[in-house]
Amino acid sequence: MAVGQTDFPVMPPINGVQLGTTNAGIKQTERDDLLVFQFSEIATCAAVFTKNAFCAAPVNLAKEHLLHAPRWLLINSGNANAGTGEQGMNDARQTCQNLAQIVGGQTQCVLPFSTGVIGQALPVEKMTIALPNAVANLAENNWENAARAIMTTDTFPKGVSKIITLNGENVTINGIAKGAGMICPNMATLLSFIATDAKISQPLLQHCLKATTELSFNRITVDGDTSTNDACVLIASGCSLAPEIIADSENYNIFADAILTVMKSLAELIVRDGEGATKLMRIVVSEAQNDEEAVQVAKTIAHSPLVKTAFFASDPNWGRILAAVGRAGVEAMELEKIRIYLDNVCIVRDGGRANDYTEEAGQNVMNQAEITIDVRLGRGNCSQTVLTCDFSYDYVKINAEYRT
Amino acid sequence: MAVGQTDFPVMPPINGVQLGTTNAGIKQTERDDLLVFQFSEIATCAAVFTKNAFCAAPVNLAKEHLLHAPRWLLINSGNANAGTGEQGMNDARQTCQNLAQIVGGQTQCVLPFSTGVIGQALPVEKMTIALPNAVANLAENNWENAARAIMTTDTFPKGVSKIITLNGENVTINGIAKGAGMICPNMATLLSFIATDAKISQPLLQHCLKATTELSFNRITVDGDTSTNDACVLIASGCSLAPEIIADSENYNIFADAILTVMKSLAELIVRDGEGATKLMRIVVSEAQNDEEAVQVAKTIAHSPLVKTAFFASDPNWGRILAAVGRAGVEAMELEKIRIYLDNVCIVRDGGRANDYTEEAGQNVMNQAEITIDVRLGRGNCSQTVLTCDFSYDYVKINAEYRT
Repeated sequence: MAVGQTDFPVMPPINGVQLGTTNAGIKQTERDDLLVFQFSEIATCAAVFTKNAFCAAPVNLAKEHLLHAPRWLLINSGNANAGTGEQGMNDARQTCQNLAQIVGGQTQCVLPFSTGVIGQALPVEKMTIALPNAVANLAENNWENAARAIMTTDTFPKGVSKIITLNGENVTINGIAKGAGMICPNMATLLSFIATDAKISQPLLQHCLKATTELSFNRITVDGDTSTNDACVLIASGCSLAPEIIADSENYNIFADAILTVMKSLAELIVRDGEGATKLMRIVVSEAQNDEEAVQVAKTIAHSPLVKTAFFASDPNWGRILAAVGRAGVEAMELEKIRIYLDNVCIVRDGGRANDYTEEAGQNVMNQAEITIDVRLGRGNCSQTVLTCDFSYDYVKINAEYRT
Repeated sequence: MAVGQTDFPVMPPINGVQLGTTNAGIKQTERDDLLVFQFSEIATCAAVFTKNAFCAAPVNLAKEHLLHAPRWLLINSGNANAGTGEQGMNDARQTCQNLAQIVGGQTQCVLPFSTGVIGQALPVEKMTIALPNAVANLAENNWENAARAIMTTDTFPKGVSKIITLNGENVTINGIAKGAGMICPNMATLLSFIATDAKISQPLLQHCLKATTELSFNRITVDGDTSTNDACVLIASGCSLAPEIIADSENYNIFADAILTVMKSLAELIVRDGEGATKLMRIVVSEAQNDEEAVQVAKTIAHSPLVKTAFFASDPNWGRILAAVGRAGVEAMELEKIRIYLDNVCIVRDGGRANDYTEEAGQNVMNQAEITIDVRLGRGNCSQTVLTCDFSYDYVKINAEYRT
């Protein structure tokens, strides 16, 4: 189902970051469903979480534990531990405590993450039995297994790796993620873990993560349903030979650019694996008065069921795109100034269909698996991009038939 | 496809309001696609229009002509005259002028309305040839033909009629509408025409229409795609023997209640005929701090593809409803106070699944064609209701295959 090339890349080890997986039987398949991260004592750790008012228990606990110095992440797939009330909090705390005992650490240094079915009690006993095995498997060269262990309805494991040079020393960045957007049936949802051997303070790392999340994971949508469990974690082990990265430095810019590249690539992989996706759409809104209105227009197009079903049908239905721009809620937009292109083919100009547009040219673009919807508002200089996928029979099938 | 009983009712004539239909060949079927309303010289006329920034040409012209004293409505289905630039305005004006010539009236006393495919030139010549026939057919007893002439992808004609008594004299209200929501493929979209023989000033009629639209048509959604052509018109012929309705009177309250009842019934018929709909969902959000947040929560649930596909599957998936409430953007909501019922079955209480909930009870409700989602926020006394339908394979089919 996935759109385009999605092979898992070579991911070198990150000095100071170990990963261990095992099968705890949460999903009742033979796939691993439990993942432990362990990182160096000098590591720093940043995290951002879902804005859904009803966070899952592990999200609430991870927010609390982030204030201490995290050294372990405990991640399970197959159960979201969301909508589980007070018991959910107790269960999440219990699993952190169990891991802390095995590794000889403190409970509040463990951040818990869960993804899977909402509203069922976390199978704490299964996890307790399996945890020693995951810890025994801890190794630096374990990224692909880790990417597979966090999958739910994902059809392929998602990883991205990048090496940069700071003052002549290599810094490696590895990231894994699971999706697919906010669209998993009964599930929740986007998790991403990125690790680097860079040395950087926690506040600066958190600043970096917040800024790069906004331009990567917060610029994709599959169906607009923000989940209760979304989380993205960035770990810096501090074990590289490169000097510490400090604020407002050239090295910080290089580092933040590389983190953004990794996160954008992971975000794109999630859209490529959107449930039922047959097409990847890059929605570029430019000539906006500010970034906010560019994002607003792009997301309105990205969320429109009419636009998404038209793309599934490879139908160059510019009227639906134009109607979505019009209802985006931007004040005083002028229809006459709008131009809309599908890739390089202009379809809307002067308030209606472009004079030189031909159905054949539009159809040629639409037949592709990856398409840019390029909307120029003619009212400013700001530009933003949002990625999304189309809306197919399989989306309905996957989400309607999940429990039956 | 429609949900529930949708028979066309008996619609008595409205004194002072005549309707004439004909087949202009716009849709290339044998169905009538042209409708003319003619009303008495003493009639008043109110209208509300789409908030989409890119209004269709007829919407812009109708807004302009509404400032004069309208005596005719000219409605075509099969072509929306939207996204048609300057030519679209000229075409709309030309058709008004043609009708004015035939009936011996002024061009600015004709309000034009179009619904159908976006982005194609209005077939003015076909309409010009057909207009005399529509005028020749003008009659007071023609409501069902009128309801049929404005249909596009609707599967049944939609009409509602109600008689009230003011000071011992009957006042009749008839309304027709076409849908289905904002979801018609390549089409646009909701049109409703309501007529009464009441006598009431234009400003008061406009006030009444605005208030009742907010609580009827603005409380339904099929897919959240607001169209470029939505319009609702309320005509008062003034031919009833009842006294003139004046502001802040008991008669006004009776009249406005009746108008609201008619409009709510028409709005519900549109949802019942939502594209691909198999279920009608009434989303009642109560115990909100104000009406705005109640509507906000209800619409977030109503727009959620995850909730809509779950209902299509008759799956009592309370986690998806809870997640939608959580992402609705209401500040400081408390999960522990929320209760969610499917009809009378409590599914969420105390931050998670209700203790006494059983899958069997939930499943029994979900197997019905009409279901109330009853969300109690536990933070105030305001309540609002939004109607929507489920999201089925046929929604994707209808919207993906329309042009192929």
